[in-house]
Amino acid sequence: MELESYKKLFLGHLSEKIEVKQPVNLYEPIYYILNIGGKRLRPVMCLLSCDIFGGKVETALDAALAIEMFHNFSLIHDDIMDAAPLRRGNVTVHNKWNLNTGILSGDALLVWAQQLLESYEGKTYKALNTLFTKTALEVCEGQQYDFDFETTFNVDVNQYVAMITQKTAVLVAASLKFGAIIANASEEDAQNVYDYGLNLGIAFQLQDDYLDIYAEEDFGKQKAGDIIENKKTFLFLKALELANEEDREKLIQFYSSKEYSEGKIESVITLFDMYKIPLLIELEIQKYTAMAIQNIENLTVSQYKKSSLVSFANRLMERKI
Amino acid sequence: MELESYKKLFLGHLSEKIEVKQPVNLYEPIYYILNIGGKRLRPVMCLLSCDIFGGKVETALDAALAIEMFHNFSLIHDDIMDAAPLRRGNVTVHNKWNLNTGILSGDALLVWAQQLLESYEGKTYKALNTLFTKTALEVCEGQQYDFDFETTFNVDVNQYVAMITQKTAVLVAASLKFGAIIANASEEDAQNVYDYGLNLGIAFQLQDDYLDIYAEEDFGKQKAGDIIENKKTFLFLKALELANEEDREKLIQFYSSKEYSEGKIESVITLFDMYKIPLLIELEIQKYTAMAIQNIENLTVSQYKKSSLVSFANRLMERKI
Repeated sequence: MELESYKKLFLGHLSEKIEVKQPVNLYEPIYYILNIGGKRLRPVMCLLSCDIFGGKVETALDAALAIEMFHNFSLIHDDIMDAAPLRRGNVTVHNKWNLNTGILSGDALLVWAQQLLESYEGKTYKALNTLFTKTALEVCEGQQYDFDFETTFNVDVNQYVAMITQKTAVLVAASLKFGAIIANASEEDAQNVYDYGLNLGIAFQLQDDYLDIYAEEDFGKQKAGDIIENKKTFLFLKALELANEEDREKLIQFYSSKEYSEGKIESVITLFDMYKIPLLIELEIQKYTAMAIQNIENLTVSQYKKSSLVSFANRLMERKI
Repeated sequence: MELESYKKLFLGHLSEKIEVKQPVNLYEPIYYILNIGGKRLRPVMCLLSCDIFGGKVETALDAALAIEMFHNFSLIHDDIMDAAPLRRGNVTVHNKWNLNTGILSGDALLVWAQQLLESYEGKTYKALNTLFTKTALEVCEGQQYDFDFETTFNVDVNQYVAMITQKTAVLVAASLKFGAIIANASEEDAQNVYDYGLNLGIAFQLQDDYLDIYAEEDFGKQKAGDIIENKKTFLFLKALELANEEDREKLIQFYSSKEYSEGKIESVITLFDMYKIPLLIELEIQKYTAMAIQNIENLTVSQYKKSSLVSFANRLMERKI
């Protein structure tokens, strides 16, 4: 099945299952965030994975929706925590409504996501739920590490990769494993497709860091937002690791002030370039992408099915913005 | 078993299971809120119920802890939403740490609560989880109705009782049903003990409303805090229903201003007394307590066991503060 068909199937399921119930002030924000778009990557991966392991795609729809709902719960609460005004070009929930609505609707969305898993039975039900809670806790922990990193320079790239693994990659990995569990794939296949998702998720986030600064064009997104906001991404931490004493001081100084200083972006990028950070992150992205593709090779499915996972990975990593 | 023994057993389990893990900034607030006391009513009810239906009390400990953790998750988030400075005489989580920690630790606590249910298997596991998500969503909905009521006088006592049922009583009911499910009680018994909890929970909340104003002594609690904060409790809504046009206007005026006016408490209480509201709420409390006791009568357990549930209800309703 084409990726677009999975997305279409998913969107149909979403509009069938998600409606504004009473009390309206609780469910309207949920309806809103679930319907302002997004790439729907995670549910598509869940459906694709189910399909690849020989499951009926339709049987994975509730799990795909649960994953997407969990993702959107985390967006509502993250946007509060980051005081973000916009999400996907639209006003964030806590700005459109208020703080309390953001907290409470987020809570309800998290619970509702898990409730959707109740359409599964027996071992499948428990396996999905167990993976869901494990993943959800990891995402919370990743978010906490992300906060913790804001107030220290005592972080290295390994800790950074561990953080994005928890904050971002485990949910991609779980989406794929959800599909495998529903299709009754072997433990080994389920683990390999999970690892594929993990590596792909890390590569995806590293690429996000890269594109934030080196994207050729960008539509709507603030250029070098990570530098403006002193985000300690892979780029910054790698530069900090390789820089001589003097440049290290400069980097720390740039990233210590909340006030934006004239020429900060250019100076930081010059330092990144000097230490070949763009090249180093590209190598890192390639490393994780290659590991993801290796995980696919280990699967006990046809070469044709493997190629659809490879092309999914390539399509994801091809983006230039 | 004595109620105190259940509590002791529970506290032992809590201290065994809940420790501060990494990242510390996420788990410390969870440890904090779970260890600043509280009556532990819900976990005690869960253990008592399991015991009554012939289950091994120890087998209900994880479920009892899950319930208590869910309750504390809701306290963390409610305290943010109510901008409450204190909880059980201690600083609230968002005040001791900050808003983001309150949101994120609350989220993690909610998920961790559900994770504890994974020690159960098969049908028990699914029944517990299904009741958990249903209850959690109802609590969120109840909280939303509570917010909605703040900005309207178009609420009647029935809507109020429906709100407190969702916000408070369903969790008491679920605590008891958890014990029944784990003890493999019949569907009917499980439903009756659930209804007992529902009625008891409503009676308990109504008594809270009553005691807020009519308690003989109170330790630490602000007297008539509900009047100061314009809380539309049963007392107020019943008075609004029975008042003549003139008194109705007065009540609405008192509850429309955020500024505290001299003599407001005394005037409102005078109106409550004039319309015999203290008597009417006492009758209502008795009605729900009587229904709770009727639910016990319907159980297929020994008279001795029934009497322990009756005395639990009486002990709960005897409190004068």
